[in-house]
Amino acid sequence: MADQRPKIVIVGAGFGGLEAAKALRRAPADITIVDRQNHHCFQPLLYQVATAALSPADVAWPIRHILRSQKNATVLMATVEGIDTTGKRLWTDFGEVPYDTLIIATGATHSYFGHGDWAAFAPGLKRIEDATRIRRSILIAFEQAEIMANPDDQRRLLTFAIVGGGATGVEMAGAIADIARQTLAMDFRRIDPRNARIVLIEAGPRLLPAFSPAQSDYVRTTLMQAGVTVMTDTLVTKCDAGGVDLNSGRLDAATVIWAAGVVASPAAIWLNAPTDRAGRIKVEPDLSAPGHPDIFVIGDAAALVDGKGKPVPGIAPAAKQMGHYVGKLIAARLAGRAPDKPFRYRHLGDLATIGRRAAVVSFGRLKLSGFLGWLFWSVAHVYFLIGLRNRFIVAFIWAFDYLTFQRGARLITEPAKKPGTL
Amino acid sequence: MADQRPKIVIVGAGFGGLEAAKALRRAPADITIVDRQNHHCFQPLLYQVATAALSPADVAWPIRHILRSQKNATVLMATVEGIDTTGKRLWTDFGEVPYDTLIIATGATHSYFGHGDWAAFAPGLKRIEDATRIRRSILIAFEQAEIMANPDDQRRLLTFAIVGGGATGVEMAGAIADIARQTLAMDFRRIDPRNARIVLIEAGPRLLPAFSPAQSDYVRTTLMQAGVTVMTDTLVTKCDAGGVDLNSGRLDAATVIWAAGVVASPAAIWLNAPTDRAGRIKVEPDLSAPGHPDIFVIGDAAALVDGKGKPVPGIAPAAKQMGHYVGKLIAARLAGRAPDKPFRYRHLGDLATIGRRAAVVSFGRLKLSGFLGWLFWSVAHVYFLIGLRNRFIVAFIWAFDYLTFQRGARLITEPAKKPGTL
Repeated sequence: MADQRPKIVIVGAGFGGLEAAKALRRAPADITIVDRQNHHCFQPLLYQVATAALSPADVAWPIRHILRSQKNATVLMATVEGIDTTGKRLWTDFGEVPYDTLIIATGATHSYFGHGDWAAFAPGLKRIEDATRIRRSILIAFEQAEIMANPDDQRRLLTFAIVGGGATGVEMAGAIADIARQTLAMDFRRIDPRNARIVLIEAGPRLLPAFSPAQSDYVRTTLMQAGVTVMTDTLVTKCDAGGVDLNSGRLDAATVIWAAGVVASPAAIWLNAPTDRAGRIKVEPDLSAPGHPDIFVIGDAAALVDGKGKPVPGIAPAAKQMGHYVGKLIAARLAGRAPDKPFRYRHLGDLATIGRRAAVVSFGRLKLSGFLGWLFWSVAHVYFLIGLRNRFIVAFIWAFDYLTFQRGARLITEPAKKPGTL
Repeated sequence: MADQRPKIVIVGAGFGGLEAAKALRRAPADITIVDRQNHHCFQPLLYQVATAALSPADVAWPIRHILRSQKNATVLMATVEGIDTTGKRLWTDFGEVPYDTLIIATGATHSYFGHGDWAAFAPGLKRIEDATRIRRSILIAFEQAEIMANPDDQRRLLTFAIVGGGATGVEMAGAIADIARQTLAMDFRRIDPRNARIVLIEAGPRLLPAFSPAQSDYVRTTLMQAGVTVMTDTLVTKCDAGGVDLNSGRLDAATVIWAAGVVASPAAIWLNAPTDRAGRIKVEPDLSAPGHPDIFVIGDAAALVDGKGKPVPGIAPAAKQMGHYVGKLIAARLAGRAPDKPFRYRHLGDLATIGRRAAVVSFGRLKLSGFLGWLFWSVAHVYFLIGLRNRFIVAFIWAFDYLTFQRGARLITEPAKKPGTL
């Protein structure tokens, strides 16, 4: 009997995939969520893992735990290798998974604009592993600067370049400044971590283009007060083991962090579907893939222009809205209803934080900056975390760290490598 | 001027090394702590990281943070490669470190009794990396059992063998039983985690030989009630990718954990000093190395028989007492005093816990079992943790998990490997 129920397969348990699964919780169907990780990662706080404020487990939660009480859902930890759209099945590293309806929620990864070799020198921040890798490289830079006698080495080791002035870049720069100026200030004997140079490099004319110019200016000023060097209108022309080449000259830096661009996961190749420049599949108004009414694409894997001609942004709320829409649409079809109104994106607002001092908030008419913005940002992020336990722990850690200037997750957990490598 | 102060170098920032550094905090000397890790690890709780209850950062703390206010102490993250006892200097991967007095506190690692190749199949538990590796292998076993159709594969994947019936083995077996019977009980659809087989293998006639026979019996009974198969008088004759060979037959198991033996770090080779069978340096009554009055050896790196003819055990309190003794002895010599009474070990007691149900406590005349023992164990471990923050977080997590049967750190953070490998 159970085999007669329609098979809905969701690839990816990010914000979009999980929301789709939840919207299908009452559907008479067998839902399978396939993810190569066992955990859902709360990406908006990943930079806090990368900067040693939170532990990986504070921002990640096992997918099967999230869906444990949804009896029509099965979670498989497997890597999708391709899609057979004719035979309606996925190929994974653990065999085939058949589907009747497929939801692709595979997200995005870093884009180096055709320079894939830069990835070795300038890691991006999308997964837990990226965060612990960056944390290691930041902490090792200080350790090696302490042990090196040569001032040139020390200067390079204590220079941190962040490429990209969007929310992730701004948040990383602010957090690294806090580490250098506050957390580690008294911990070393031979170097003064407060001399660290944190450089935020943005190709466009201003930081956080999603915000108003006044808020961009505020962010720039606040970062500069925190000791961050902000370079706008600056292009990276090369990344190597010793730093970056800029159109304005060379910057020697042992740590380079990439927050500049994203490219969609290879779902478009699996489907042989038309994409935008970032590799996202250009979806129909109902989020189905062109020519595949049984395949939906949501979140960062999808390219869609909303009613006002603006592209739907690659942020968590957009992915969640898409997941909810597709889940409800499939559930309605299964119930014999046909409420196929096109997807409409509702932009709630933008948030970004700058170290422990301030945040900018732009929610329609609500514009906040400074400490009030920081409080709003903190409450919003704790609220959206999954699980009472994580909410409580993160709230406690933030309060504790706010009072003590500490960061409790300063672990280097892989063998140290020679300077200049990551 | 500063260069005229005596140089005291401590290798290893475990319990012994840190205690020695603290005992020297008022000494007119330059103290350098060299460790290849940047953190001190609270080893007694490492099994809780391996079993997904705590995060690595909950049981580890940056060494330089612990010593930040001790102005005569410098921390270097470097790996010692040898000792030049004539020239009085260490060779490290970052160059030479000269000393006037040297304290070796390098601890111990797993011993496979001459079968070093077993390490690939049966990891031990000494460092943070070991704990996350074991955590990954336990969690992946359940994930792969869910995805595998073959019952033989499932049975092998859901069999967990723990070799060694000391405190670590007992604690690991109890915790894995809790994971299978409680934490994961409702999370899977195709397998029932409660069918997992947890086998604790001990070569001697009883578990926890440091405790009384009555307490050993209690531990055995409690473990069996929790669903653990206890095999005493059982020898492992081979470890491979599919399980272990025992003198009583073959046991197929995807996960094998080694808690059977330890061997001291290579300090004895550096010094060319006489050792016991476990590679520990046989120290003089003042803990100096034979023939090297300026070199002290403490903790698991040292072999010493106390006044009553009993060997000093390789546990944290013994390492701390040795570190304190040596630090005070060096400080007294620097002050021109000579209180060189020999080291005397004071045994405080033994503690071991069995899952979330019970613990055994033997502190002189105080013998506790069951829930009372568990409470005593919990309070004692929270008390000895470093840092208010870690104490609070661990206490909160234990209380929360006790009420909800949860484990919040169930992360698989490296790519899944094929079954049978770790």
